Amino acid sequence: MKKNIITISRQFGSGGRTVGHLIAEKLGIPFYDKELVDHIALESGFAPKFVEEHGEHSPGKSVFSYAFAPQGVPGVMNGLSTADFLWNIQCGAIMQLAEKGPCVIVGRNADYILKDRKDCFHAFIYADKEFRAERIVRLYGESDKSPLARLQDKDKRRSVNYQHYTGRVWGASENYDICLNTGTIGVETAADIIVSLIKNSDE
Amino acid sequence: MKKNIITISRQFGSGGRTVGHLIAEKLGIPFYDKELVDHIALESGFAPKFVEEHGEHSPGKSVFSYAFAPQGVPGVMNGLSTADFLWNIQCGAIMQLAEKGPCVIVGRNADYILKDRKDCFHAFIYADKEFRAERIVRLYGESDKSPLARLQDKDKRRSVNYQHYTGRVWGASENYDICLNTGTIGVETAADIIVSLIKNSDE
Repeated sequence: MKKNIITISRQFGSGGRTVGHLIAEKLGIPFYDKELVDHIALESGFAPKFVEEHGEHSPGKSVFSYAFAPQGVPGVMNGLSTADFLWNIQCGAIMQLAEKGPCVIVGRNADYILKDRKDCFHAFIYADKEFRAERIVRLYGESDKSPLARLQDKDKRRSVNYQHYTGRVWGASENYDICLNTGTIGVETAADIIVSLIKNSDE
Repeated sequence: MKKNIITISRQFGSGGRTVGHLIAEKLGIPFYDKELVDHIALESGFAPKFVEEHGEHSPGKSVFSYAFAPQGVPGVMNGLSTADFLWNIQCGAIMQLAEKGPCVIVGRNADYILKDRKDCFHAFIYADKEFRAERIVRLYGESDKSPLARLQDKDKRRSVNYQHYTGRVWGASENYDICLNTGTIGVETAADIIVSLIKNSDE
């Protein structure tokens, strides 16, 4: 079946976002990442920055989880935690985007949310820690934390969030059509492989 | 770096062996699977059939594990269980084969045994259960067990063996350069992707 929607799940620093961007560019289809965040924020009433930080991270377990109702929409969370509320909005937003037509969606558990659509192609992008550590320092600069600690922290949060909402193991190959190690294959080549597979998928 | 050795790890019924065979054929390099079994058998004194059945399966835990010393080589096992003895022989055989030059090696934890060689490319081939169940019945015929039970049994044994000897999780994407789902991508295309990556790997 023709694959129209490409979901990219990725380890932090692996270049998965760039892979997704290149694919969208080469196929001439929309790319959703920050745009998706903005869309969710608009729907939920949360600030884009807040959605970006919490949409893929651990489900809230602290007392603050229930504390921040979106401004101007009192009572809209219906007793859900912030994380659960965002999850619901996110599922709806991703399903709507997929309905609109061919696109690339990066992160936000889209592989799971769209698992029942036969026209989706799911990729996981990863790389060894040294490759990713060098890359995040080059792209995002230094921080108080060591690069390895930053990788571990972000991956852990994505993984816990994924497992909590999907019941699956994050990065387990069986959830994807392809898993590519950009550390050895390269970011450009990873994008080219996926583009070629999409172009040759059956009508 | 130029990739000379390709290791293929695979779920039972995924077509990983065929992928490996096609790669070897297209690159004009040796393919080791049954050949590797025969080599190990020769070294160990065990019958090829025995090596084939035990070399990738669970480490022996029963009282029989120590019972079957190879005929004609009394005392050669040095107190090792059959499984540990085979593991040692297998490591040596795979390292020797890699030293001989470019080749494709299927199974037998070769990805782990050769993990420190920079000229290796490691692939994991998998597919959903329906694809594999249909394939094993078509290729190997029916048996007393249901196809799904046969898949589960073989995968479980490979997985336990891998974890026991390597300390890694079998099929975890981080152990490989690429993971390909033949159920959606196809066996031929999977081989073509790897051949293209090997041909374009840097000298």
